[in-house]
Amino acid sequence: MASLKRWIIGSPMETKQLKHEKLPKWKALAVFSSDALSSVAYATEEILLVLMLLGTSVFFYSLPIAIAILVLLLLVTLSYRQIIYAFPSGGGAYVVARDHLGTATSLVAGAALMIDYILTVAVSISSGVAALTSAFPSLLPWKVQIGVALVLLLMILNLRGITESATVFAYPTYLFIISVLVLIAAGGWQLWHEGWHGFNYKEHASAEHLFASGYSVFILLRAFASGCSAMTGVEAISNGVPSFRPNSSKNAAITMGWMSALLGTMFLGITILAAGFGVTPLEHKTVISQIGHHVFGDSIFFYLFQMVTMLILVLAANTSFAGFPQLASIIANDRFLPRRLAARGDRLVFSNGIILLSIFAIVLIITFHGETHSLIPLYAVGVFLSFTIGQSGMLKKIWKDKEMRKPTTMLTIAAGTIVTGLVTIITVVAKFTQGAWLVIVAIPLLVWMFYRIHDHYEKLGEQLKLDEQEWMLREKMLKPKVIIPISGVSKVVAQSVQYARSISNDITAVSVIFHEEEEQKLRAKWEKFYPDIPLQVIYSPYRTILWPILDYINEVEKQANGSPVTILMPQFIVKKWWHTLLHNQTAIVLRFFLIMKKDIVIATLPYHLRE
Amino acid sequence: MASLKRWIIGSPMETKQLKHEKLPKWKALAVFSSDALSSVAYATEEILLVLMLLGTSVFFYSLPIAIAILVLLLLVTLSYRQIIYAFPSGGGAYVVARDHLGTATSLVAGAALMIDYILTVAVSISSGVAALTSAFPSLLPWKVQIGVALVLLLMILNLRGITESATVFAYPTYLFIISVLVLIAAGGWQLWHEGWHGFNYKEHASAEHLFASGYSVFILLRAFASGCSAMTGVEAISNGVPSFRPNSSKNAAITMGWMSALLGTMFLGITILAAGFGVTPLEHKTVISQIGHHVFGDSIFFYLFQMVTMLILVLAANTSFAGFPQLASIIANDRFLPRRLAARGDRLVFSNGIILLSIFAIVLIITFHGETHSLIPLYAVGVFLSFTIGQSGMLKKIWKDKEMRKPTTMLTIAAGTIVTGLVTIITVVAKFTQGAWLVIVAIPLLVWMFYRIHDHYEKLGEQLKLDEQEWMLREKMLKPKVIIPISGVSKVVAQSVQYARSISNDITAVSVIFHEEEEQKLRAKWEKFYPDIPLQVIYSPYRTILWPILDYINEVEKQANGSPVTILMPQFIVKKWWHTLLHNQTAIVLRFFLIMKKDIVIATLPYHLRE
Repeated sequence: MASLKRWIIGSPMETKQLKHEKLPKWKALAVFSSDALSSVAYATEEILLVLMLLGTSVFFYSLPIAIAILVLLLLVTLSYRQIIYAFPSGGGAYVVARDHLGTATSLVAGAALMIDYILTVAVSISSGVAALTSAFPSLLPWKVQIGVALVLLLMILNLRGITESATVFAYPTYLFIISVLVLIAAGGWQLWHEGWHGFNYKEHASAEHLFASGYSVFILLRAFASGCSAMTGVEAISNGVPSFRPNSSKNAAITMGWMSALLGTMFLGITILAAGFGVTPLEHKTVISQIGHHVFGDSIFFYLFQMVTMLILVLAANTSFAGFPQLASIIANDRFLPRRLAARGDRLVFSNGIILLSIFAIVLIITFHGETHSLIPLYAVGVFLSFTIGQSGMLKKIWKDKEMRKPTTMLTIAAGTIVTGLVTIITVVAKFTQGAWLVIVAIPLLVWMFYRIHDHYEKLGEQLKLDEQEWMLREKMLKPKVIIPISGVSKVVAQSVQYARSISNDITAVSVIFHEEEEQKLRAKWEKFYPDIPLQVIYSPYRTILWPILDYINEVEKQANGSPVTILMPQFIVKKWWHTLLHNQTAIVLRFFLIMKKDIVIATLPYHLRE
Repeated sequence: MASLKRWIIGSPMETKQLKHEKLPKWKALAVFSSDALSSVAYATEEILLVLMLLGTSVFFYSLPIAIAILVLLLLVTLSYRQIIYAFPSGGGAYVVARDHLGTATSLVAGAALMIDYILTVAVSISSGVAALTSAFPSLLPWKVQIGVALVLLLMILNLRGITESATVFAYPTYLFIISVLVLIAAGGWQLWHEGWHGFNYKEHASAEHLFASGYSVFILLRAFASGCSAMTGVEAISNGVPSFRPNSSKNAAITMGWMSALLGTMFLGITILAAGFGVTPLEHKTVISQIGHHVFGDSIFFYLFQMVTMLILVLAANTSFAGFPQLASIIANDRFLPRRLAARGDRLVFSNGIILLSIFAIVLIITFHGETHSLIPLYAVGVFLSFTIGQSGMLKKIWKDKEMRKPTTMLTIAAGTIVTGLVTIITVVAKFTQGAWLVIVAIPLLVWMFYRIHDHYEKLGEQLKLDEQEWMLREKMLKPKVIIPISGVSKVVAQSVQYARSISNDITAVSVIFHEEEEQKLRAKWEKFYPDIPLQVIYSPYRTILWPILDYINEVEKQANGSPVTILMPQFIVKKWWHTLLHNQTAIVLRFFLIMKKDIVIATLPYHLRE
């Protein structure tokens, strides 16, 4: 077992090896933006999938929706650039809310972020597998299995601790950026020469009557909400300011600008190409792969493009493997999550958080059959909720600080807060029945759980706190009354009796028998060896050892007059694991019950068999 | 949990309630012969299934094969009638072989019998389900599930303890006997009037050339071996002699005669009807149900007949639920199986044996998809092997006893032994590739396991035996060195220190820290409360508590100079189960390792939280 663990996750590392790399801008862009940039692989498709409810004749509307999202992206980018300057120590929505908006709000942000991280893994991996199966349809029957395998792979890599090597991230991210830009350029060239043969405004005109109904407006809002999945991950840079080389705020703000520009270009480009080529969402072929196929044909470039897309999506999932355990450890240190989430494993990573994230992501992938579009409605709510809370916290902080309180800063961040707040509401309403309700239920449940856990830790501290004065008053304890449960006379028992004699003079052996006629024989044997130690024999008509022993101990306790009662259990330890099957495990069950029920010392003296 | 167990298996019973009913002949017939009689439900079909390999033209050969089996039945019956008189105390092949043929042979018989009991459950239940699905084909897709459910039902009933109520057995057994006799009478009447329209000797004549080849002879032998499944369970009465009313031997011998006569009549009758009506084995309709359908048409009688057939087969399976746990407990008492198989549960039955049998039977039913004919090749080997060993043992016993050694007795039992021995060999050879090899592999494996287990118990006894003289020489132990692992100063620790003071003056606290800077704070706090107790602080660079503590204890042990080392573990016990998740279980892991590795006392002083 231990060597298997070593082989999978590597040798343990010393606490002192913990260090942080300072990143140049070009590396930082790769590390912090894979999540945001990769979302262009599915965002356009999600818009079209919703519009399809009204028919392909409204597909032209994907363009105004994309532009609305770009405006939103611009506002949020401006807001976060201000935040980068105002809060150079980084820290996500949870920390900001905790320090400036109070515990309750911070816990809501924490819950939203945790859900968001889990969904990032599930959505990115599902979408990555879709990129793979779009190129190789024969893999379709195994898409759930492939998704689960990828999550497990990421889990193992992260348990080994890959987070510190930023170079690994750089290649696929830049490969993806270049691929998509080449795709847009080549596709644009084709579109220019072949002419716009997809969905256009004229076609839409015939469908204008559709927009009379409120339902259609609702669907447009829903398409907008789905498209907002393109914005997931844009806040990552603002959380990672301390990782930038100095002057870190300035470098981070520049990188943030580049990231948003790239994201906007790629998203708009893909949406235009989809509309221009008249791409319709298909069940087993992603929209972006259809565009790729249109532009590159069946050449090697198409397959390379799909592989690069899959790679960036897996990388996007990987960002959660850094973020989730980090967040969970912060919340755990605040005592709102189990403490073990704050403990670093052998490889200095928060192993339990990594494992927990993997389990939840796998459950989601299996439950939703690895379908990206089934997971999307759950996704955007948490993201925009944490955007809103994070920016509100910043706003409050800046408001309090007279030096920072400049009108431009305040207005920019306020605008960001308001629009992300609005998008949160739009997302909840428009996608409520599609699955957003799940998140609306999960967030309060998580917050309730946080409080329950916190409550336990608080009460524990109070109960265990040693009061100096009260303690000094306590008298010295009397020697213990020792009870030795036996089933016969053997070397194991002899060893226990010998030990008992060294700690007390008040020793009793107790034996439970199933047939009354056994008593005489047992007593005779006992008295031959230990005439000075009383033997209590209890007949158990129902052939159970547990209850008669418990009853007996209760009786002894009553008569103990303040002496502590000690149960000394003779136990022989077998040499081979399968030998355990050959012996009744009464001692283990008895010990468990005693520890659970009684405030007495339970001592075990093991006797190791040689063969 | 406990109340669920009570609801399923009932309240515990006192050991004194153990008693044995004495049965009149008519009840004894029902109790001991359901296994034997029920086999007519599948034996004929198994013969025909093998003959089909040569084509339906040889189906007429089922009649001479049936007659050969009847001769075998006659010989075995005569042999066992002698055994009943010679060995009125009953006891199966295992006990007889153990007492008269030596351990090795008895263990082979024990292994064969155990396999036989498991297969009786699997075969009878599968065949019972086939009776059900023959009447209601819509249940076919669930045949494995129904089989498993029936085994679980029998398991629960037997855990409650139904073995003592013989009347329950009487009704279905007699219903089945009457049903089959009515079927044979009515079928015979139809055959007489309609004429023999099935397979006949003339038809066979055209296929005579087939029998030139050795292959055909081999297939005939295999058909015979399959038909021998009709004989399973005929020895049951000889094992149950003590349950008969006096004069028990005479009554048992008479009952044995009746049982064999009924079995022979029913088996021959069904085989003749199958041949006369020209019934061919079908995949989803048993041969006996086809005969039933032919005779009763689609009337209610056909459905009743199927239900009665199913009932007797379930009852046959139930006989193993009495036999297997009883046998396992005898072998366990001889220390060739884990002792817990010899322990009576709450309801005085051998619960572990019942559960073990159910598990094995369920595994077989699932593995062989609930197909009777796939299980049959495994079946007969064990049965005939134990017949042969059992009779050999009797023969040897009688040979030694001059009074019993009469020529008729000896010759009858010798004849029985020889023919069953021959059938064992035929079965192994003819059905080797069909699955008999599994049993040939399993029996030596089981015997090897028996010896390994026995070896462990023997060595255990030797190692634990208390040598009086050696013991008396031992000096009194010194007071223990007490080590208290702590992670801080709390009421839990205080309670442990107080106890430690009561048993020794040599106390050390030890704490493992992950960051070197923690030491100063911890030491200051400790010294405020316990200036007289030394605190050992160990820095663990790899953030593990286990190994530093183990190293430290090894060191202490070396310097202990004969004082026993005691680890006293302060442990707080949470109030609600889920609180356990909120705490590191280091204490439990540490305790486990210490018990496994070291011969030192590990004492736990629980501190129960109030909330």
